[in-house]
Amino acid sequence: MESNPAPTAALLIIGNEVLSGRTKDANLSHLGTQLSEMGIRMMEARVVPDIEARIIEAVNELRARYTYVFTTGGIGPTHDDITSACIAKAFGVNLIRHHEAMAVLAAHYAATGAEFNDARKKMAEVPEGAALVENPVSKAPGFHIGNVYVFAGIPRIMQAMFDSVRGELATGAKIASRTVSCRIGEGTLAQGLGAIQARHPGIDIGSYPYFAGGGFGVSLVLRGTDEAALDAAADEVRALIRSLGGEPVEGEPVKEEAGK
Amino acid sequence: MESNPAPTAALLIIGNEVLSGRTKDANLSHLGTQLSEMGIRMMEARVVPDIEARIIEAVNELRARYTYVFTTGGIGPTHDDITSACIAKAFGVNLIRHHEAMAVLAAHYAATGAEFNDARKKMAEVPEGAALVENPVSKAPGFHIGNVYVFAGIPRIMQAMFDSVRGELATGAKIASRTVSCRIGEGTLAQGLGAIQARHPGIDIGSYPYFAGGGFGVSLVLRGTDEAALDAAADEVRALIRSLGGEPVEGEPVKEEAGK
Repeated sequence: MESNPAPTAALLIIGNEVLSGRTKDANLSHLGTQLSEMGIRMMEARVVPDIEARIIEAVNELRARYTYVFTTGGIGPTHDDITSACIAKAFGVNLIRHHEAMAVLAAHYAATGAEFNDARKKMAEVPEGAALVENPVSKAPGFHIGNVYVFAGIPRIMQAMFDSVRGELATGAKIASRTVSCRIGEGTLAQGLGAIQARHPGIDIGSYPYFAGGGFGVSLVLRGTDEAALDAAADEVRALIRSLGGEPVEGEPVKEEAGK
Repeated sequence: MESNPAPTAALLIIGNEVLSGRTKDANLSHLGTQLSEMGIRMMEARVVPDIEARIIEAVNELRARYTYVFTTGGIGPTHDDITSACIAKAFGVNLIRHHEAMAVLAAHYAATGAEFNDARKKMAEVPEGAALVENPVSKAPGFHIGNVYVFAGIPRIMQAMFDSVRGELATGAKIASRTVSCRIGEGTLAQGLGAIQARHPGIDIGSYPYFAGGGFGVSLVLRGTDEAALDAAADEVRALIRSLGGEPVEGEPVKEEAGK
């Protein structure tokens, strides 16, 4: 549908706490959903620890491969916040104090009465050449340089920062979806479903089993940019379910657990 | 504490549905927590789409770098389940029907009355040389080959598969933690916290702000294998909080949102 290849994206989640299991990441699902609406395909996510070499390596691999890279985490005032310095090293530029960030933070701490100390001034440091990303929640800005967007890790701040930049991003045709669920086993559906996928190569059909109400079910999710083709393929999925004695249910059931 | 370097691990999450935002991964936090208890450090996680080249590349990069690689997703009967074939290609071996897996599945489908058709026989296919991983939940096994463990994506099945293999894994000294929370701003704590980190290089101190009860707070998490050193460092953190006029609270508060 689109004249240019669809833009792509990767998310780099930076933080020991996500790897140790302490913190459950909530940013990938938010960003994946938002980008799909904008026609930007999330192609990869990585979680790396607070280790400089690992962050630099991941940033450089991902920014070479995808249209956009979003990073979350590690831009606060404490010793374990090393993202900004790592991004500067990844781009081979100096880390500088950004005048506008200094002004925003100075005004914020003057208003709150907290001391604008050296640790807080660290939050005004960005790679030379970076542009600030506004943070309406807690003021300390993110930034972007090249195709890399650097956000905070706290979900409500990350979401606000993404909203600050979404208008700048190149978009593609919206990736729409249709979901049909049923109580037929995946192994019973598989052959017919594979045939539907083969007839619709422009659509991505996924089969996701789940537990609900004490038994297994399966959600069949069709994704693509051509709404008419999606409708046609979804009709074929409903017909397949009925041909196997099942009852197609629109959308996703309430699930105890999902995954694949 | 340990005589050998601590074993390391990576998680490879395979599935378009995690990248699109449809499915929230729950396996990283479970595995990260379990491995910490066993003294195995989770060093990286990646999420890749159902694309053969991406899966093979990620498996080969991760298995060369870490003691263990765990994969989740893509081992069911449908067309989008390509993990087993990709692992075989990553190792340069054939994909074969495993006799024991065939027997387990044949008995399962005989008992349930479902047809043991070609799609379901696909779930008995493993790379040549792989050993099965028992699945007490839904029978279709996982497998491991070399240092790569291949699990289902549904959390309750993944967790059961991990429990099936945990006794085989080399362990290290348990990575213990202490958590102290307070309502002091991170920027106020940062200098003193950095000094505590510098005095305890064997301990990993993280600072994680959160929203709760209408305001910001911060949880300070100390992780390491030396319990006495953890206690000493945690005492210093409590003293720091008190010196700044705050009240240290043990553990994590109930949070609306966490992250960093």
